[in-house]
Amino acid sequence: MSDLKRSWITSANSESTDFPLNNLPYGVFSVDDGDLRCGVAIGDRIIDATGLEQAGHLRADPEADVLDAPYWNDFMELGARAWSAYRAALTEMLAEGADEATQDIITTFSVPMAEATLHLPFRVAEYTDFYAGRHHATNVGTMFRGAENALPPNWLHIPIGYNGRASSVVVSGTEIRRPWGQLKSPDHDTPIFAPSRRFDIELELGAIVGTPSEGPLTVDQADANIFGYVLLNDWSARDIQAWEYQPLGPFQAKATATTISPWIVTAEALRPFRVSTPEREVPLLPHLADTTPMNHDIALAVSLNGEEIARTNADELYYSAAQQLAHHASAGSPMRAGDLLGSGTISGPEKENRGSLLELSWGGKEPLETASGPRSFIEDNDTLALHGASHGNGYRIGFGPCEGEVIPAAEDPFTG
Amino acid sequence: MSDLKRSWITSANSESTDFPLNNLPYGVFSVDDGDLRCGVAIGDRIIDATGLEQAGHLRADPEADVLDAPYWNDFMELGARAWSAYRAALTEMLAEGADEATQDIITTFSVPMAEATLHLPFRVAEYTDFYAGRHHATNVGTMFRGAENALPPNWLHIPIGYNGRASSVVVSGTEIRRPWGQLKSPDHDTPIFAPSRRFDIELELGAIVGTPSEGPLTVDQADANIFGYVLLNDWSARDIQAWEYQPLGPFQAKATATTISPWIVTAEALRPFRVSTPEREVPLLPHLADTTPMNHDIALAVSLNGEEIARTNADELYYSAAQQLAHHASAGSPMRAGDLLGSGTISGPEKENRGSLLELSWGGKEPLETASGPRSFIEDNDTLALHGASHGNGYRIGFGPCEGEVIPAAEDPFTG
Repeated sequence: MSDLKRSWITSANSESTDFPLNNLPYGVFSVDDGDLRCGVAIGDRIIDATGLEQAGHLRADPEADVLDAPYWNDFMELGARAWSAYRAALTEMLAEGADEATQDIITTFSVPMAEATLHLPFRVAEYTDFYAGRHHATNVGTMFRGAENALPPNWLHIPIGYNGRASSVVVSGTEIRRPWGQLKSPDHDTPIFAPSRRFDIELELGAIVGTPSEGPLTVDQADANIFGYVLLNDWSARDIQAWEYQPLGPFQAKATATTISPWIVTAEALRPFRVSTPEREVPLLPHLADTTPMNHDIALAVSLNGEEIARTNADELYYSAAQQLAHHASAGSPMRAGDLLGSGTISGPEKENRGSLLELSWGGKEPLETASGPRSFIEDNDTLALHGASHGNGYRIGFGPCEGEVIPAAEDPFTG
Repeated sequence: MSDLKRSWITSANSESTDFPLNNLPYGVFSVDDGDLRCGVAIGDRIIDATGLEQAGHLRADPEADVLDAPYWNDFMELGARAWSAYRAALTEMLAEGADEATQDIITTFSVPMAEATLHLPFRVAEYTDFYAGRHHATNVGTMFRGAENALPPNWLHIPIGYNGRASSVVVSGTEIRRPWGQLKSPDHDTPIFAPSRRFDIELELGAIVGTPSEGPLTVDQADANIFGYVLLNDWSARDIQAWEYQPLGPFQAKATATTISPWIVTAEALRPFRVSTPEREVPLLPHLADTTPMNHDIALAVSLNGEEIARTNADELYYSAAQQLAHHASAGSPMRAGDLLGSGTISGPEKENRGSLLELSWGGKEPLETASGPRSFIEDNDTLALHGASHGNGYRIGFGPCEGEVIPAAEDPFTG
């Protein structure tokens, strides 16, 4: 297990911070309604990476101001070697033993995190949602098709997924308005247009493509192209989904919003926590087969109004993000810096490991008992939050918050 | 039926041109490997709209250079009133009777179309593909599920669709490389990874969102937000699709490429050709119901290696683009300038009206006899083209070419 790297910013050395020197995640922040700037979290501070670049103290690219933007996409396009060099340089400036001049520069170009507003850390190019958690696929399949046919025939051979709506991705803290949609009860012959009654969360890990590509990718190439990870809540209207999803898949059920955590935790920061995917029931074809461990040991949890209601781990994913990306590129689609790949809901083997209310309440048949009352699905004004961290020796690689309050549906959807 | 507007550019007055003064479609062009510029087609010439803006002769926005870009998106964001004013001003400059000084300006800021290379006319924000053609849905459903269950239960109530991959949209003329993919024959227990053997076209109409929006839209609001239309060929690997599409819908089957015609034909140019949607079997819910005619009478055709193999009409669409967009926004997803909405394949009632080889060859059971030999699906080096035009009195509103040659699959997909 890897050890804490100590920083002269003492708040970064606490066992309880999400942001030790080992982490250095990338975000976008503003202070007092000022410009949006690229920042790096360390302890209770945010380093103004845009400012460091402008002043010439730390540049990722000698030729171009890649951080002179309200997103990290231009930086991502520089590729893995540049990411690593930048991170190494920043680590040196922040490590215990940095000289006083360096400490003065960092102090000048940093702000207390408590004073900052966080924004989407990257411009979401396109958004894809996979279905790579076996327990979730099995639970949902059992509810909808029975235990005998729980997993679709393709499920053990490819990480199936669907394209989502990039424009609906929002940063943690954004209020989520309950959607209207077309719903059809099994008891009725015709559908109605009404607010969703079965609005839900999905606990996922989001992978962010950094290096653009044009054609098919091997799993190793795909892995090298992934810049980092965020927590991702794919808000889901189960009643809209049930009516719409055959035969073209989920569409408006997933279109309201997807919330991500505000800090991109880099693939490099998570490297010490790499683990293998679960044992395979059938071998994968060579183009998708595991090469080295590419899953991550990340403890995950869900809370409802501050109360933990589920806990699981990203190591449950049957397909790593690299395998998802390799499949995604297999038919030749170009991939871009800022493409966001949701893993699909990550559930574990036990009831308390389920990453959606659909599973926790077994489709509403076994409402969950919570301090806020029984819950089959989300009620108005509930706040749902995801939590995630990898645990090293004396430190944690945290993702920061991924939460949203569900506010009531509009009375008339066409006037807001 | 509306009449030809005559232009002093005489090639625009020919009955055979796609680009009379009544059309004025928007594209992006370059000459001799120079900069990409915004252009407007008229007769056999392209007006350099970027140049007219820079020189101050014709500006869509007095404050901003919205055409100083290799795409029309910034112009689109100005909204319908600005679109209309710009079109009216340009029409006046090009109409018979324009003064000599104006004619000199236009002559200075235009190039022969034959000397120009055409590019994607807009930055595709996101791409969505609907399934709004009833004959196509019925044909495909009959092949896959039998005549009794041809239409999915939701089909008559909502324009079902799925999100596609914007990065894969290319302009007419781009070569299309046959994709590899995971395929499973019904005769085998396990899949293989191989080049697609059932690669196909889909004849569609693409609608382009111009005005951005944040919440649900009425059908009338949606209609007003649509900037224009293109022909769209949604290349489809039927064998990849058959294995992957349950339960999340098409994914890699549609990821290789989608070809669009290079000129955005504006909603305003198509206004004289508005027609009602076909008679409804069951009424739509009020939020999707027809208000005024929003379909278009556009004659469409498909050719294979120059030989026409199918002809149909956009008036066959059961749901207009406005209805597609209203449904798309219903759960609250923001829509952006440059969102592209494919209609789904437009087939007609007869065999010769079918807009895909899947239908024309009835799943390969009845190969189509062509001058290039029998065809069940696309063979290597086949060139497929879509054609479209609305016919007025003495003129046609044409879309220009929408074609692509299918080149052989890579020998090793991971090295190109």
